[in-house]
Amino acid sequence: MTQTRIDLEQLAAMTGREQLEAMLDGRLPPAPIGLLVGLVDFEVRAEGAVAVSLVPRPEHYNPIGTVHGGIHSTLLDTAAACSVHSTLAPGERYTSLDLTVKFLRPVTVETGRVTALGEVLQRGRRTALAQAQLRDEAGRLLAHATSSCLIVPPAG
Amino acid sequence: MTQTRIDLEQLAAMTGREQLEAMLDGRLPPAPIGLLVGLVDFEVRAEGAVAVSLVPRPEHYNPIGTVHGGIHSTLLDTAAACSVHSTLAPGERYTSLDLTVKFLRPVTVETGRVTALGEVLQRGRRTALAQAQLRDEAGRLLAHATSSCLIVPPAG
Amino acid sequence: MTQTRIDLEQLAAMTGREQLEAMLDGRLPPAPIGLLVGLVDFEVRAEGAVAVSLVPRPEHYNPIGTVHGGIHSTLLDTAAACSVHSTLAPGERYTSLDLTVKFLRPVTVETGRVTALGEVLQRGRRTALAQAQLRDEAGRLLAHATSSCLIVPPAG
Amino acid sequence: MTQTRIDLEQLAAMTGREQLEAMLDGRLPPAPIGLLVGLVDFEVRAEGAVAVSLVPRPEHYNPIGTVHGGIHSTLLDTAAACSVHSTLAPGERYTSLDLTVKFLRPVTVETGRVTALGEVLQRGRRTALAQAQLRDEAGRLLAHATSSCLIVPPAG
Repeated sequence: MTQTRIDLEQLAAMTGREQLEAMLDGRLPPAPIGLLVGLVDFEVRAEGAVAVSLVPRPEHYNPIGTVHGGIHSTLLDTAAACSVHSTLAPGERYTSLDLTVKFLRPVTVETGRVTALGEVLQRGRRTALAQAQLRDEAGRLLAHATSSCLIVPPAG
Repeated sequence: MTQTRIDLEQLAAMTGREQLEAMLDGRLPPAPIGLLVGLVDFEVRAEGAVAVSLVPRPEHYNPIGTVHGGIHSTLLDTAAACSVHSTLAPGERYTSLDLTVKFLRPVTVETGRVTALGEVLQRGRRTALAQAQLRDEAGRLLAHATSSCLIVPPAG
Repeated sequence: MTQTRIDLEQLAAMTGREQLEAMLDGRLPPAPIGLLVGLVDFEVRAEGAVAVSLVPRPEHYNPIGTVHGGIHSTLLDTAAACSVHSTLAPGERYTSLDLTVKFLRPVTVETGRVTALGEVLQRGRRTALAQAQLRDEAGRLLAHATSSCLIVPPAG
Repeated sequence: MTQTRIDLEQLAAMTGREQLEAMLDGRLPPAPIGLLVGLVDFEVRAEGAVAVSLVPRPEHYNPIGTVHGGIHSTLLDTAAACSVHSTLAPGERYTSLDLTVKFLRPVTVETGRVTALGEVLQRGRRTALAQAQLRDEAGRLLAHATSSCLIVPPAG
């Protein structure tokens, strides 16, 4: 955490994977959403594969006493979008076009720690398709998502 | 807010709309997710139509400096699911099967207050389809969602 | 139908709406899929609004004796994609990125003629979002779809 | 093909997989949609895994000279829905709730034979989630779909 912060020129020269790893080792600031919601153990497992976890708490609940679907969506969107981010060449950017979430099993504090694993299914020049799976520690599938991203080529 | 809390037997005798209104006037506890994320001005506009708002803050940001898609999803899922909730007969319950979000414009603190309006498009005996639209104060469409719900009939 | 066919240079100078209207009056060839599946009464109702109909036949059936979801999808994809097509400036092209269909009621030959109405919900510079609704003659909603399209600007 | 046709009582006593296999060996009538669109080589690879193919023809084209998205949807819906069908217990029925298709690469007659492989990702008591992938002979991913189905338990 004593490492020097990265300036914009350095950022543009890095691959997406290098940017994500710089965020992990503190050379780039962390994502505020992660602190708000309680995302933990973000990990770039490979180019195009990213994992992120969360321990459900009562603060995540909807009125019917289970974790709100927005929390599943936050985990799955992070895993899917960052798996695409990890494939970017220097100067490339991306934006998420959509997120399709399927809720398969309710999640509560009894579920314990849950992990979303995002993977790139297809990477084109202009678009990418990723999927993400949310599982509990026993490996049961709790929710599933797909997400399409638009790839923005380097300017000039 | 000095009103008496509702017990489980009373809850089962209420329509979905009455349950949501009891949450609004403090006879039922509020949804924890709303406090965590900052949902405000939840409103049942009609049976099958619900609105909820949020004022974007830096805590909602992803690493690229815009509001994280999980926040859009939380707003849209709340508006869509609660619009279905507002159509429930006493004893009926529901569960969300999916949420399909389309991200149309980036949201930042400069966007100002945003409002998700959920509406039931079709209500069958076993399933319901809702849509939700996220707009800024000028009425521009920022994101769109559809959500299917499973209706669980009263036991017995 | 005695009108002269249009060459490629003329095509590039036409708006999307003019192209669709040239197909309707026979100056451009009709879409083969329409003949195969039995699409009828294609109509550009406005810039960004297109309708197309079909009369269900036993040939459209799946093994369980109702119209196969691929037929709903063909109608809804045509209505959604062509509503985006009708907004194109000369030289612009588009491609469909996705189609999300919700099946709400079974369709059979007893349903009679069904009509898909496509409408553009948002038209950006690089992307567009359309929805389409499939209804019977009594106006009941049978299926619903959303579709995102990528807009390809004129070359050069 | 000389085998005796199956009556309704026999049908209700069969598993979903047995029903699909009876359709393949001619004891149950084939699906009309398959003849209309040109589906070939339908195959139950395992309980929860089904494949179906198509050789693109000009009749499948949209106005822009590629295979219409309705054809991708027909293949993917067939593969996804039948993979769920193959998991049914005697007396159980199912209905498709939705189909989310992502179009990844254009398909033309030059693409040659394409195959959709459907797989059940999750099978609950009341719902099931399937995915389907459309690939060319070289294995390239052309389109991807997910589909949720409602499981209807045996009557009584």
